[in-house]
Amino acid sequence: MKRRIYLRMKSLEEAREMWLARFDLEGMARSEEIPVAAARGRVTAAPIMARRSSPAAHQAAMDGFAVAAAATFGATPDNPKHLAVGQAAFPINTGHLMPPGTDAVIMVEQVPDPEADPITVEGPTFPWQHVRRVGEDLVTGEMVLPEGVEITPWAQGALLAAGVTAAPVRRRPRVAIIPTGTELIPVTELERELPAGKLPEFNSVILSGLVAAAGGEPSVRPIVRDDPEVLAAALKEAVDAADLVLINAGSSAGTEDYTYRAIAALGEVLVHGVAMMPGKPTVLGVVQGKPVIGNPGYPVSAVLSFEQFAAPLIAGLAGVRLAPRPSLTVYPAQNLPSKPGLTEFIRVTLGRVGDKVIATPLPRGAGTITSLVRADGLLTVPALSEGLEEDRPVAAELLVTPEDIEGTLVVLGSHDNTIDLLANLLHRRDHRLRLSSGHVGSLGGLMALRQGRAHLGGSHMLDPETNTYNVPFIERYLPGVPLKLINLAWREQGLMVAPGNPKQIKSIRDLVRPELRFINRQRGAGTRLLLDYLLKQEGLDPDQVQGYAREEYTHMAVAVNVFSGTADVGLGILAAARALGLDFIPLLPERYDLVVPESTFTDARFQTLLSVIRAPEFQAAATALGGYDLKDCGTILWEQ
Amino acid sequence: MKRRIYLRMKSLEEAREMWLARFDLEGMARSEEIPVAAARGRVTAAPIMARRSSPAAHQAAMDGFAVAAAATFGATPDNPKHLAVGQAAFPINTGHLMPPGTDAVIMVEQVPDPEADPITVEGPTFPWQHVRRVGEDLVTGEMVLPEGVEITPWAQGALLAAGVTAAPVRRRPRVAIIPTGTELIPVTELERELPAGKLPEFNSVILSGLVAAAGGEPSVRPIVRDDPEVLAAALKEAVDAADLVLINAGSSAGTEDYTYRAIAALGEVLVHGVAMMPGKPTVLGVVQGKPVIGNPGYPVSAVLSFEQFAAPLIAGLAGVRLAPRPSLTVYPAQNLPSKPGLTEFIRVTLGRVGDKVIATPLPRGAGTITSLVRADGLLTVPALSEGLEEDRPVAAELLVTPEDIEGTLVVLGSHDNTIDLLANLLHRRDHRLRLSSGHVGSLGGLMALRQGRAHLGGSHMLDPETNTYNVPFIERYLPGVPLKLINLAWREQGLMVAPGNPKQIKSIRDLVRPELRFINRQRGAGTRLLLDYLLKQEGLDPDQVQGYAREEYTHMAVAVNVFSGTADVGLGILAAARALGLDFIPLLPERYDLVVPESTFTDARFQTLLSVIRAPEFQAAATALGGYDLKDCGTILWEQ
Repeated sequence: MKRRIYLRMKSLEEAREMWLARFDLEGMARSEEIPVAAARGRVTAAPIMARRSSPAAHQAAMDGFAVAAAATFGATPDNPKHLAVGQAAFPINTGHLMPPGTDAVIMVEQVPDPEADPITVEGPTFPWQHVRRVGEDLVTGEMVLPEGVEITPWAQGALLAAGVTAAPVRRRPRVAIIPTGTELIPVTELERELPAGKLPEFNSVILSGLVAAAGGEPSVRPIVRDDPEVLAAALKEAVDAADLVLINAGSSAGTEDYTYRAIAALGEVLVHGVAMMPGKPTVLGVVQGKPVIGNPGYPVSAVLSFEQFAAPLIAGLAGVRLAPRPSLTVYPAQNLPSKPGLTEFIRVTLGRVGDKVIATPLPRGAGTITSLVRADGLLTVPALSEGLEEDRPVAAELLVTPEDIEGTLVVLGSHDNTIDLLANLLHRRDHRLRLSSGHVGSLGGLMALRQGRAHLGGSHMLDPETNTYNVPFIERYLPGVPLKLINLAWREQGLMVAPGNPKQIKSIRDLVRPELRFINRQRGAGTRLLLDYLLKQEGLDPDQVQGYAREEYTHMAVAVNVFSGTADVGLGILAAARALGLDFIPLLPERYDLVVPESTFTDARFQTLLSVIRAPEFQAAATALGGYDLKDCGTILWEQ
Repeated sequence: MKRRIYLRMKSLEEAREMWLARFDLEGMARSEEIPVAAARGRVTAAPIMARRSSPAAHQAAMDGFAVAAAATFGATPDNPKHLAVGQAAFPINTGHLMPPGTDAVIMVEQVPDPEADPITVEGPTFPWQHVRRVGEDLVTGEMVLPEGVEITPWAQGALLAAGVTAAPVRRRPRVAIIPTGTELIPVTELERELPAGKLPEFNSVILSGLVAAAGGEPSVRPIVRDDPEVLAAALKEAVDAADLVLINAGSSAGTEDYTYRAIAALGEVLVHGVAMMPGKPTVLGVVQGKPVIGNPGYPVSAVLSFEQFAAPLIAGLAGVRLAPRPSLTVYPAQNLPSKPGLTEFIRVTLGRVGDKVIATPLPRGAGTITSLVRADGLLTVPALSEGLEEDRPVAAELLVTPEDIEGTLVVLGSHDNTIDLLANLLHRRDHRLRLSSGHVGSLGGLMALRQGRAHLGGSHMLDPETNTYNVPFIERYLPGVPLKLINLAWREQGLMVAPGNPKQIKSIRDLVRPELRFINRQRGAGTRLLLDYLLKQEGLDPDQVQGYAREEYTHMAVAVNVFSGTADVGLGILAAARALGLDFIPLLPERYDLVVPESTFTDARFQTLLSVIRAPEFQAAATALGGYDLKDCGTILWEQ
C-alpha cells in the first residue's frame, strides 16, 4: 500500500486562478444553428438581423373602417363625407392588413351608424391614423438581438416576426461523467435490494443536474471498475467525445488513485488536491487541450468541487452567466472551529429569531448529503481563519430565498419523527412557512432558547427527583422567561435488542447482567435522564451497567451499535429500532413537549403551527407512525 | 358591424382577486410518479421517506486498515499490537465497506510501515473511529423530502441514496394554446416568403415559453380561422385535453370577438376586459371548471396579460413558486403621462448615470415586441395616477440583473445602425458591459446630456450658418460643459424614391416640382437640418416644397411613406431605403459624432467602448453595411 500525500496541494484561490486562466473559453466555444421555436434559454452566438420588416405590411391598429385619409379631408358634422362600404371604406379589425389604397383607420366608435352603407364621416382623418406601418417595430437588416444574450420567449417572438426561423446559438458544451468504483451499482438497478458489498452510484445523477444547470449537456458513461487501464481507456474515449470530462471518485489519497495517474498518462495534471473542505481530493488536468476534472467521491465534496472548478468552465463555454447566489448577514449559533490552511464550506439552516438571522450548522461530514438537502445557506471559513465565532456576523450564500428565511420557524432540541410530519403539514397549510429542526438534545434546546437562537424547543426531560417532565429544567435554565409548555406527544421508550432477542432481555433489571454490553446516550439527553430514573426506581447502580460510560448522540446511533453487535442493548424509541429491524421491548411512555417562549407564542407563524398540531390530520399521521399517544397533543400543560 | 364595449371592464386588482379566488388550485393539482433521475426541478407531491438507510452498511471514512477496535486496546509505542493483514487488519480505502467483524479504521498515516504484515499498531483505536456507520446520513423511514419542495440535484442524490428510485411529483399542468385568426400562417411555414395578406403567427411560441417557465406543459393547437363554430369546437376539445386553455387574439372589441362568445357558450365569462395597458382585451372564463383565458393578440399585451392571469394559475397547479422580479428605485427620463383608470406597464431601458438609475421609456405600443426585447425593466403607473413624473423616484421591476445595469452605457440621440454594431462588439469584448441606445434625435441627445440622463449623445447636426457639424449646437445647449466630440462615422444621406425612380428625381432641386409630394423629418432632427442646409445652398424656399410640413420621426417612417406611395420622396440614409427596397440617390456624406462628457470619457466602461470603436473589427463591420466612411472614426475632433 502506497501513500500519496497531497504534496502539491494548492489553495482554493490559487487553484481556481490557475485553472480558469488556462482555458480560452471564447476560443473553445462552439456554435450551432437551431430553430428559433426551440431556442428559449439558449445564448446567441452572433448578432441576428431582421430578414423582413415587422409589420411586414400596414395593419389596422384599431377596429373600424380603413379609408384613404384624403377622402375625409374637409369633413365636418355639418358637412359630412359619405364613403361607400367596400369601395371607399372597408370594415377592418385590429391587426388586420390594410386594403390597397387605404392609409388610415376611422375608429368604429366615431362612425354614427357602423351598419349603414355608405358610412358617414364627420371629421377629417390624417394619414396613418390608427395604422401600424411597415417596419414600425423592426426594419429589414436591423439587429434584433446582439450576440451573447439569452433568448427569452419574447425574443423568440421578435425573431419570428422578423422572419428569422433559425438562430445561431452557442452549442451546449458536452460534459462526460465517468463514475469509478468496483463496488458501485448503477442507479438503474437500485430498484432491487442492494447486493452485499455494493453501494449505489448516485453522484452521476447529481453531477448531471449540476451540468445542465450550468448550461452543459451531461452524458453519463458506464461505471469504470478500479483498474487503471480500463480508466485510462474510458478517459481517452470520453475526451474524444466531450468538451469537458468529470471523473467521479477515484481521486482519494488511497491506492485507487487512478484518476491522477490516468490524466497524467494521457495529458497533464495541473492541480492534485485543493485546500478546501469538503472537496480536497480534486484533481485538475488537461488532456488534448480539454479540461478533465477528478471530482471527489463524497457527494458534498463532489458538489462543492464542481461549483468551484467545473461550473465556471461549462458556463463559459455555454456563454451563460451564472448568477452569484444572494448573500445575507447571519449569526452562527455556535463557535465553528475550522482547520487553518483549508477553506471550509459549512452548510447551515437559517431562521430569523428576533433581529438576527441565526445560522445553525448541519453535520459537516462530506458524506452527509442530507446536509446539503436541508441547507438554507453556506458559510465560508477562509483558509487563514481558525473558524467562525458564535454570534459574530458573517455572510451566508443563500440556497433559499430571503422570503423562505422570514417564513421559517426554528425548533432546536431533541429530535422526534413527528417534527418531520409537522414540518410537512405546516408547509402544506401555508407555502410561505417552513419548520427547520436542529437536533441538539433537550437541554441543548433550552440553552438555544436562552441565547435567542431558536423560536421553540423540543424537550422530553424527566426529573428523577420530582418525577415531572421539563418544568424543573425550564425553571433552572430559563427562570422568569415567559413561556408555555405545549405537549406534542407521548412516545414509547424501550430497550432495543438484536432481532429475536437472543440475550433474553426483558426489563431494565437485565441491564446489570455482567455479560450484557449496554450503549448509553450522552449527558443532557432526555433518554439518558430516563435511564437514570428507571435505574433509580429499580434501586440499581449505574456502575453495575457494563457500557454505561459509552455514549452516543442519537437514537439511531444507539440502534446501530446493537445492530452491529458492538452492544447488546440500548434505550431508545420504537422508530429507531424499526429502522434497523431490531426487537423493541417497551418500557414506558414519555412526554415530548414543545417549549414556546411568549414572543414565539404570539407570532402568527407559530399560531399557524399550533393549529396544525391541533388538527386531526397531524394526530392521525403521528398515530400511524406507531409508538405515539396523542392524548395531550396541543394542550398547554404549564406556563410561566 | 356590432360594437362591443367593455361594459364590465374590471380594474386589474379586482380582476386578479376574483380570478385567483375562483380556483382551488391545491384541489385541482394532479400528481404523478416519475424516476428520481428525471425529477430535477420538479416539485414533490408528498413527503418522501427513506426506503433504506444511508450508508446502507458501515463504510471506511479514511484510507487505512479496518480492525476490531477491541484488538487495539492497550497498544502503546513501547508495547505495540501486531495485527495480521487479511485476518485482523484489512487494507481499506475511503468509502469502501467495512469487512465483517471490524468496527474501526486506523489511518494509513498512523501505521509505521503500511507494507508490512503484520502491521504494527502503536495506540488504541476506539469503536467507530473513522467509520461512517449505517444510517449516519439517512435512516429507513426518515423523511428525505417534505411535500411541496423543488427537487435539487443533491435531493435526487439523497433520494437515490435512500433507495427511492421513483418520486411522487406534481404533474405539470397541461396548457393548450389556441391561436386564432384567418390571416395567420404557422411559424413552421415562415421559411417561405410571407404570402400576400398573411401575417406570421408567433405568439404561440412566446406563450409556450412563458407556460414552460411557469411550470406548465404547453401544447399549441392548430390555428383556428375566424369562425365562431370552429372556435367553439376547438375550445371544447382543448378543455377536454388540458388543465388550462389560452385562446390567443380574437379577444379584441371587434366583430371577430368570438373568444368571448365561445367561452360564454360553453361555460361562464367572469371578466371581459381588464383596465390594464397593454393587456386590456383580456377575457377570463371557466369551462367545465377549468380556467380559459382569452389572451390579447398584440404580443406585449399577450405577455403582460399572461403574467397577471395565466402564470399564477399554472405555477399554483405545478406547485412552483414564481419568484417576484427584483425591484429597483429609478428616475424616469421624462414625464410619462398615462390614462387614469388604467394600470399601465411601461417598458424602459435602465442605466446608472451619476447617482441615479435613469429609466428611458421604450415605445409604448402593444405591438412593438422589440420594446420587451430591449427592456431592462417595467414601470407600473397605477390606475389612479395620471402618469409618472420626470426625475421622481419610482420602483422598476427588473428584467435584467443589477450588475447589467451597472455595466450599461446609455447613449441617447440620433439613431444609427453602427450603434447596434458597437453594442454587439462591446458586449463581446467584455460580457459585463452593455450599450443601451435610445432614439430621441440629435438635439434630444444633447438635452439628455444636459439633464444627466445619458452617458453620451449621438449627433449629426449641421449648422447651415457655419457649415459645421454639432459644435455650434453644443456651444448653445451645453455651454461650458467639459466634453469631447468623437467621430463615429461619415454616412451617406440621400433621397429615397420609389423603386425604378418613376418620377425621375435627380437632385434636391427636384423637390420644388409642384407635382411631387415630399415627406419631412421632425424639427431638431439632423436630417431636417441637412435638408434646410441643402435647400438654402440651392437658394430654394421651403415653402415651395409640397409636404415640407409633414413630419416623421425616423428614417424608416419616411421610407414607409415613399414605399406606400403617400409621398414621392424623402431624405434619409441608405439603410432605410435598402430595408424597403427603395431607390436611393446619394446627396452628400454627413458626420455622425458621439458627444462625450468628461465624466463619461474618464469612465473605464467608456474607455473600453472607445477601444472597440477604434478597433479594425468595428470599422470593417461598419464599412460592410454600406453607405459609411470610417476615415475619422474614433478621432477626437473637438473638445471644450
